[in-house]
Amino acid sequence: MDEPEYTPHLPERTAVVGCGVIGSGWAARLRLNGVDVRAFDPSPDAPSVVEDVLANAIAGWELLGLPTAPLGSFEFCDSIEAAVAGAQLVQESVPERLDMKHAALSAIDTAAAPSALLASSTSGFKPTDLASPLTHPERLVVAHPFNPVYLLPLVEVVGGEDTSRGTIDRAMAIYRRLGMHPLHVRVEIDAFIADRLLEAVWREALWLINDGVATTEEIDDAIRYGFGLRWAQMGLFETYRIAGGTGGMRHFIAQFGESLDWPWSKLTDTPVLTDELIDAIASQSDDQSAQYGVRELERIRDRNLAAILQALEANRWGAGLTLAQQRAPNAPN
Amino acid sequence: MDEPEYTPHLPERTAVVGCGVIGSGWAARLRLNGVDVRAFDPSPDAPSVVEDVLANAIAGWELLGLPTAPLGSFEFCDSIEAAVAGAQLVQESVPERLDMKHAALSAIDTAAAPSALLASSTSGFKPTDLASPLTHPERLVVAHPFNPVYLLPLVEVVGGEDTSRGTIDRAMAIYRRLGMHPLHVRVEIDAFIADRLLEAVWREALWLINDGVATTEEIDDAIRYGFGLRWAQMGLFETYRIAGGTGGMRHFIAQFGESLDWPWSKLTDTPVLTDELIDAIASQSDDQSAQYGVRELERIRDRNLAAILQALEANRWGAGLTLAQQRAPNAPN
Repeated sequence: MDEPEYTPHLPERTAVVGCGVIGSGWAARLRLNGVDVRAFDPSPDAPSVVEDVLANAIAGWELLGLPTAPLGSFEFCDSIEAAVAGAQLVQESVPERLDMKHAALSAIDTAAAPSALLASSTSGFKPTDLASPLTHPERLVVAHPFNPVYLLPLVEVVGGEDTSRGTIDRAMAIYRRLGMHPLHVRVEIDAFIADRLLEAVWREALWLINDGVATTEEIDDAIRYGFGLRWAQMGLFETYRIAGGTGGMRHFIAQFGESLDWPWSKLTDTPVLTDELIDAIASQSDDQSAQYGVRELERIRDRNLAAILQALEANRWGAGLTLAQQRAPNAPN
Repeated sequence: MDEPEYTPHLPERTAVVGCGVIGSGWAARLRLNGVDVRAFDPSPDAPSVVEDVLANAIAGWELLGLPTAPLGSFEFCDSIEAAVAGAQLVQESVPERLDMKHAALSAIDTAAAPSALLASSTSGFKPTDLASPLTHPERLVVAHPFNPVYLLPLVEVVGGEDTSRGTIDRAMAIYRRLGMHPLHVRVEIDAFIADRLLEAVWREALWLINDGVATTEEIDDAIRYGFGLRWAQMGLFETYRIAGGTGGMRHFIAQFGESLDWPWSKLTDTPVLTDELIDAIASQSDDQSAQYGVRELERIRDRNLAAILQALEANRWGAGLTLAQQRAPNAPN
């Protein structure tokens, strides 16, 4: 485990720009850590999203037995400028369009204190590309979280060409103090690490539906009754290392490697999202899950995630170890 | 949930042909269900693999609070013929080479009672291709399990062109009675459903290492601190349905779909397993995991899987619901 060299103070005041599910998740995690948040989002839906996500987050933290009071304050502002004034951390979570990212980040860059850390939640854009209109690109990082932000510990931290080393260190330390597992992605690529893997699975899954091989439910079951259980605690390589036996990873690759050239997958092509394919996915998903409303699915998901995190905490492993450290940040490992 | 229409008797006698990690996992699951097993494997290592896997399986079932006695009997035989004589279920788990599969399945087909169910553990070959040399192809199914077989509930059940409907029904019922979640893969394709998804991730992960973007440990962490936790309980589509909000899956696809065409992944090509790449993977994996021996990694994995299964059982969800049904097979849901 790479440990922080120091335990930094949490920022006293933060700003969240963009209050969809991700931005609201950041606001909830910050407030549950006692941090004050000012927010900007022009959407009329934003207040109810913030409220719903906070309610879910409090319920999730109660399941985990984490303190949920005192909660940091929250205030909607009329402008980006008002939201970011005095903030030490600004978390940007506007929609995934480069023009919208540029507009928001430029406004933040202009209005925020030069010492403020500027973090984008983008799941795809490189920080260097995001930074192009900024006056102070050295304090920009990508900090890409995973939904639900208030429960899942992973945040991918990525610097651009002009990002300073101090900015990376500061971001890593702050996200650790927020109870997360920051993963420093050392090389800038579009979509970073996790979403590369997710995109690969997503494409293959679309083919399976397109070709009538499997439904959304069958694909989900192939994940959650099998390798998904493995991946909650070890990843791809540590799992396969075991499969290699005492011969280790080298033996595993020797066994498995040649099948890479077999014509199994259709990854060499991208499925076309025809109306028929979209209809199939949407109606299969309704068959699978429409007996639950979205709010109920969220509760089911969060209850399961909290239970899994606690199970892993008892074993002091992976995401459970992160939770244990969050519970007692100054205790030895 | 699709429920079995009847609770079949477990087979009284079974045969396991091929006693690597998968075959030994089947033997352990069968014996823990009180079923007698005869086995054939010409490898001198087979007895110790069988013994080690059984010890792990008993430890895992003890963690789950499942009964581990009385254990079905186990006997190594000198030939396939001796192993399969009188067996009602023969589970083939020889190495993944079509010539070896054909040789083993032909011998089994000739020696087994015509009423015996013949199941192949292959992770890739289509049942129709496996059945080509058989006299009784109607009783062949693929039944593809996931390691560790004694803990993970998923088994993909796939019929070939000549497989009878009765064979599929019988296989589904038997695997349910063994405490598993059989998933009927309705359309024959190479690698079925789960390994298609795994191959996609594996390829993309190899590119990330090949290009120096991430190490094995960083890739594993990107999985197990983030989406791996989601996938232990919901899959891809049910998770994304939530992300679509009240607009559901159709809204999610509309948001996310166009990025499919972005040049993110390198899936259009297959990485070449050069010596350099193999060295990089093997040494990174050593850096990540060599502080644990393989036996210790197995124990860590199994302890985590048992804890996750019990956490989901308390929530009566997914693989936890399968465990609850295994614990009380005649109880109402």
